[in-house]
Amino acid sequence: MKTDIAALAFDKMNRKTKPPGSLGVLESVAVRLADLQQNLEPKLSKKRICVYAGTHGVTAEGVSAYPSEVTGQMVLNFLSGGAAINVLARHAGIDIHIIDAGVDADWPDILLKQRQFFYRAVRRGTSNFFQEPAMTRVECEQALDVGREQVRAALRDGIDLLGIGEMGIGNTTAASALFVALCGLMPEDAVGRGTGIDDASLRRKIEVVAGAFERSAPHCSEPAGLYWLHVVGGFEIAAMAGTLLEAAKARLPVVVDGFIATAAAAAAFNIDQRCRDICFFSHRSGEQAHGKALEALKVEPLLDLKMRLGEGTGAALAMPILEAAAKILCEMATFESAGVSQTLSSELRTPNPKLRTPNPELRTPNSEPRTPNGER
Amino acid sequence: MKTDIAALAFDKMNRKTKPPGSLGVLESVAVRLADLQQNLEPKLSKKRICVYAGTHGVTAEGVSAYPSEVTGQMVLNFLSGGAAINVLARHAGIDIHIIDAGVDADWPDILLKQRQFFYRAVRRGTSNFFQEPAMTRVECEQALDVGREQVRAALRDGIDLLGIGEMGIGNTTAASALFVALCGLMPEDAVGRGTGIDDASLRRKIEVVAGAFERSAPHCSEPAGLYWLHVVGGFEIAAMAGTLLEAAKARLPVVVDGFIATAAAAAAFNIDQRCRDICFFSHRSGEQAHGKALEALKVEPLLDLKMRLGEGTGAALAMPILEAAAKILCEMATFESAGVSQTLSSELRTPNPKLRTPNPELRTPNSEPRTPNGER
Repeated sequence: MKTDIAALAFDKMNRKTKPPGSLGVLESVAVRLADLQQNLEPKLSKKRICVYAGTHGVTAEGVSAYPSEVTGQMVLNFLSGGAAINVLARHAGIDIHIIDAGVDADWPDILLKQRQFFYRAVRRGTSNFFQEPAMTRVECEQALDVGREQVRAALRDGIDLLGIGEMGIGNTTAASALFVALCGLMPEDAVGRGTGIDDASLRRKIEVVAGAFERSAPHCSEPAGLYWLHVVGGFEIAAMAGTLLEAAKARLPVVVDGFIATAAAAAAFNIDQRCRDICFFSHRSGEQAHGKALEALKVEPLLDLKMRLGEGTGAALAMPILEAAAKILCEMATFESAGVSQTLSSELRTPNPKLRTPNPELRTPNSEPRTPNGER
Repeated sequence: MKTDIAALAFDKMNRKTKPPGSLGVLESVAVRLADLQQNLEPKLSKKRICVYAGTHGVTAEGVSAYPSEVTGQMVLNFLSGGAAINVLARHAGIDIHIIDAGVDADWPDILLKQRQFFYRAVRRGTSNFFQEPAMTRVECEQALDVGREQVRAALRDGIDLLGIGEMGIGNTTAASALFVALCGLMPEDAVGRGTGIDDASLRRKIEVVAGAFERSAPHCSEPAGLYWLHVVGGFEIAAMAGTLLEAAKARLPVVVDGFIATAAAAAAFNIDQRCRDICFFSHRSGEQAHGKALEALKVEPLLDLKMRLGEGTGAALAMPILEAAAKILCEMATFESAGVSQTLSSELRTPNPKLRTPNPELRTPNSEPRTPNGER
């Protein structure tokens, strides 16, 4: 059943008025969307990005250029509508949900009443993973559930396309550690400058990532993705992984934002391979290790705009491209319907009389030349 | 004056709530747009793509996979609303103009009355440039004027952002020849498979491109861009170049589509360097030589989606990204307005009390921890 729709969508795409394959990535994206929705006319009219926030204990090691408090301050900025993700989501007609998965902040009551805010903090920030596991196994399951809940809400609300993004000072360090654990990157290849640290902090960040592995026991029965999420992850990263795990069950397409969201995807892929089918990687981040991580995961992102902000900003820019791909499959004319010659020039140098346009008045006549009336 | 606005826009961008540079290419695009519009709040609300069509005499050499008649048939498809450019322009709220700059077709009267169609054919197709110059110098000037006219119309209509795209079976051959002449590419590097030719046609296409140079006399007093446009160009390519030349005078930003539009840009840059300031290159085409041509022109495209259709489809996908960049500069909060700490963590570990949010109720309080009410 699944394969049939993909094959039919591929065939439908090849009958459109364009050389086969000439719309590049749009074509393969459209076929994947048709397959996921089991519909030759995939629709992506309702879009939402879930921005998960979490505080990271590992910031105590001096791995970030910004103080840990910025995580909570940025959540307020998201809810005031002034952050980059707000601007880009409004631009593309994308709804946003802000989820506190574990931020060290007290929220005023007025905030807790906001419809787009979800106060689901597992704890007020992870433990410092350089010293001890970031969270307990139970907390990790709770964080995964925070993400799963958003998929159920999305399905209830008729969302066609979900995005995942995050905010968490220190979380590039956690993401780098996950790439070391799950994608086989070396610490020095997996670590970048995050929000913009200097050389000394970069060396420290590499030490911190490498150190986490010296201390940690190898995992046993559970999937590596689950084990490392609790040892070096973050509450917002686990929540993003939970979103992917639940979306895979429902075959709901999800746009993965940048470096940190990709780390969540690496964990989710390890736990359940079906997550691969639903993920669309929005962009290659300016964070240097992201390219290597995407390569290790054998995925190709849509954009490469040197962005490295997170928040779901890359997902917000990529979503309209997915929507465009779906519309190509739905709305574009075929060679038959438009009366356009499809045959190679060596075989046919005049229009095929059997091909017709929908409107016979709009056919190319083969009458006498006449002077263009528009010349000046 | 010009430099001042760019510097102010750069400064404004750096006060936004994000690490400096973290929005990558969006930031530099926004600064360029502010500079072009001489406005710290650049607006791109009205967008239009001009799709120029032309027939190419060089198709007689067997360089294309499609018969020459497809050019006219696709113009009809554009006007019926069923082509890829129609779908993508509708998706992004972009108006389109279809301009016959020199198509070998007779248009029914009903077509000539369409507001979005401009019948400006210089001639019913170029001459075969493998045998003789594609057009006369006078015709080349006429074709440039066809493009200039569209800029004047765009300015009258209050268009903020213009795009250029094209349709013309055989025009990858003309574009390749222009890249050889103007960017110093070797014929075998400048030629690709276009709409999808086989190995034999590819070898022929290289011969045809190389052959045009053996026959042609070197240019004398006029700019090389102008000379080669008439010798190996196309009416739609010259019209696109005319659009850029006129837009440069008005400092109107123009999004350049793909391989063939880039050849028009190469000619325009050679004729008037100011064209560089207004051009935004939408994407790196799947046509293999495009990357080399962009490199030779020292420009970086926004997208890389392996598209190679033309019609302005790449421009249509890139325009919303330019619009997003402008909105970032206009709408995003600053560190001051949002009350977000900007200082490095080594210097400041608690929020700066001097920083305030616009809404005092939405500040992060530093009171006692409390249990999240959202836990399950």
